Amino acid sequence: MTQPLPKPLAFADAAAGVIAMAHFAGERHWVPATSGNFSVRVDQRFAALTATGADKARLTAADVIEAEIAGPKHPRASAEAPLHHARYAADASVGAVAHIHTVASTVLSRRHEAQGVLRIAGWELLKAFPGVTTHETAIEVPIVPNDQDTERLAALVEERLKNSAPVHGYLIAGHGLYVWGAGAKDAIRHMDAFDFLLTAELHEEQAR
Amino acid sequence: MTQPLPKPLAFADAAAGVIAMAHFAGERHWVPATSGNFSVRVDQRFAALTATGADKARLTAADVIEAEIAGPKHPRASAEAPLHHARYAADASVGAVAHIHTVASTVLSRRHEAQGVLRIAGWELLKAFPGVTTHETAIEVPIVPNDQDTERLAALVEERLKNSAPVHGYLIAGHGLYVWGAGAKDAIRHMDAFDFLLTAELHEEQAR
Amino acid sequence: MTQPLPKPLAFADAAAGVIAMAHFAGERHWVPATSGNFSVRVDQRFAALTATGADKARLTAADVIEAEIAGPKHPRASAEAPLHHARYAADASVGAVAHIHTVASTVLSRRHEAQGVLRIAGWELLKAFPGVTTHETAIEVPIVPNDQDTERLAALVEERLKNSAPVHGYLIAGHGLYVWGAGAKDAIRHMDAFDFLLTAELHEEQAR
Amino acid sequence: MTQPLPKPLAFADAAAGVIAMAHFAGERHWVPATSGNFSVRVDQRFAALTATGADKARLTAADVIEAEIAGPKHPRASAEAPLHHARYAADASVGAVAHIHTVASTVLSRRHEAQGVLRIAGWELLKAFPGVTTHETAIEVPIVPNDQDTERLAALVEERLKNSAPVHGYLIAGHGLYVWGAGAKDAIRHMDAFDFLLTAELHEEQAR
Repeated sequence: MTQPLPKPLAFADAAAGVIAMAHFAGERHWVPATSGNFSVRVDQRFAALTATGADKARLTAADVIEAEIAGPKHPRASAEAPLHHARYAADASVGAVAHIHTVASTVLSRRHEAQGVLRIAGWELLKAFPGVTTHETAIEVPIVPNDQDTERLAALVEERLKNSAPVHGYLIAGHGLYVWGAGAKDAIRHMDAFDFLLTAELHEEQAR
Repeated sequence: MTQPLPKPLAFADAAAGVIAMAHFAGERHWVPATSGNFSVRVDQRFAALTATGADKARLTAADVIEAEIAGPKHPRASAEAPLHHARYAADASVGAVAHIHTVASTVLSRRHEAQGVLRIAGWELLKAFPGVTTHETAIEVPIVPNDQDTERLAALVEERLKNSAPVHGYLIAGHGLYVWGAGAKDAIRHMDAFDFLLTAELHEEQAR
Repeated sequence: MTQPLPKPLAFADAAAGVIAMAHFAGERHWVPATSGNFSVRVDQRFAALTATGADKARLTAADVIEAEIAGPKHPRASAEAPLHHARYAADASVGAVAHIHTVASTVLSRRHEAQGVLRIAGWELLKAFPGVTTHETAIEVPIVPNDQDTERLAALVEERLKNSAPVHGYLIAGHGLYVWGAGAKDAIRHMDAFDFLLTAELHEEQAR
Repeated sequence: MTQPLPKPLAFADAAAGVIAMAHFAGERHWVPATSGNFSVRVDQRFAALTATGADKARLTAADVIEAEIAGPKHPRASAEAPLHHARYAADASVGAVAHIHTVASTVLSRRHEAQGVLRIAGWELLKAFPGVTTHETAIEVPIVPNDQDTERLAALVEERLKNSAPVHGYLIAGHGLYVWGAGAKDAIRHMDAFDFLLTAELHEEQAR
């Protein structure tokens, strides 16, 4: 997919996008116990990123840091910052990244870990993702094993994504979901789509 | 059923009905990822309709267009506008149409696709629909296969409805639910009734 | 149980209790599609009662009527008014009655209809009901078959309650839940307790 | 675990923490039917504690009492006060205690009562608890049988906790969950983490 590159943003605008994503996820209870993190690309070098430990549901501008994508670790960066940075470094079209813990994504990520992938096929709502124009399709969402070494985890994720068909999210087993898009608004739409699709899959599996 | 025809409305009043339906559905998370669309009949020729791409949960008057029911496609019409227009053209008593993606409707639409119908029987809440005066009844909600050609899909739907007992909604497999009523208020009541009934059916099936 | 009789109330205070119950239930989505109804006893002769057709989640004082418990049907009374009146007539300690449609109560009412009773045993939250002082107990919630003749249904219900151990609610199969208490605040607490207990039962049954 | 002792608080600040916990739990429907209770340690002798019978979702300062941890029962103390006091007496690092009734905790507490413990293993969100630095771990949440004699129950609980690996909560079978932390904010984070983890466990068990 050749997607247009996101335009550079003022840091304040990028931070506003981070806050919008965090509040959206917080209202849905997708960032339990101060988990989750959110970022918006400022330009090719920098991104606005949630600081470690912040309550995402009540995020304010003071909780957003400006981090150098390829630079040394920001002192207030969360442990999962490398997973955000790696997405920006690997794909210039990524303008925003969200990490959330929804019940459906966490349960399914663990149930299908051995397969290394969750296949989602045939649902109309797949069209929420760019490049999908029909329900007669399937996406294969990579599932990677969880790892506390997030530099190593990020390298594994990017290796998997390089060898996968285009997709807008991946699962970390027993952990949660990463989602991205061209900007904060797109990442919000993709979070919403993934939650609906994975909740539907969870119900469908219960009837098997 | 010979139902009274809805009275012609000023466009602004029809648009207010569209917004009320969209906000109601948005609060319940039935329009994930900017999906869903809503319309209110203005008169026999025109309807107020949600524009393509709008966030239904935050819909404003600027997101509502005036579309000619039998006319050429409005430049801002969503891809699913033909499914709305076809309802107004086929049944003069239809004053409002809502399309939503609830978890229960989407999961059940796919589970029962092969039967082509979802039978809902014996629940008191069936009385929420006009013409139903006792729980000792059943409605048969048509299920049609999903189709990206919405003109063709609309024709199939109307063919099915012409040959069905009176009903106030249909399911598109793996996609979602269409609902209608004499006006926006009725369509809201019918969305609410379908969600309750389909959620109850989903739980009942899990015990089988 | 010899319970103190509820004190007579001014109609406006009784109506305020009706509104509080309706809003509480509305926020929880327990009155889908304008279903449900609520009443508070004014004195031994009258009760404040929701009028037919009102949207309970947005109930206002204009939607509350003063109905004579043993009198002729009030012109704006809902079809289910006899089920409220019968409770007030049969038990002078009843000060408020709520009728709601929760998913768990409706699903379980139908699943256990053949037994005529739903037994709820061993949960701490049973202590929410007056007269229950330990979890080492069980309540037997009567289940009656649904009937559109609500006078006949009310007679059957009261017959069942007369022959049951004390309880603060009953189920109508495929329909919903009736709950009562000494006043509106008590009925709200009992709605909340029943919803929790029945939702827990629903989950427990899914593991069997 | 050698944890820092919580600093003494003014009673008003401790009460504010109690109210924050109660409102957080109330919004999530974890204190149905005026159940649940919350406390914050003032110092080694006193704690701020919810009074009996208060509606926790609408708790105000007037509903918070100052109770002596090792003293005689406060006249407005709830029946479960001994379970709070015992935690403060046994562990000087405990600064806040929350008792809630979530659906998942109540259902699982009863399902696993015979084992006396609920093992939660491998989830990333376990890191919400102090001392947990990797998902490659398990916590064993004690389950004690319910008992209306809360002094006896508190003694049993503390005996179990003394012989358990460090944990930040326990379950009372068919009753609910106790959770604690260094302060109100920590107890809120731990409630949120337990609810997510137990809900995920409930879904995982349904697929077995």
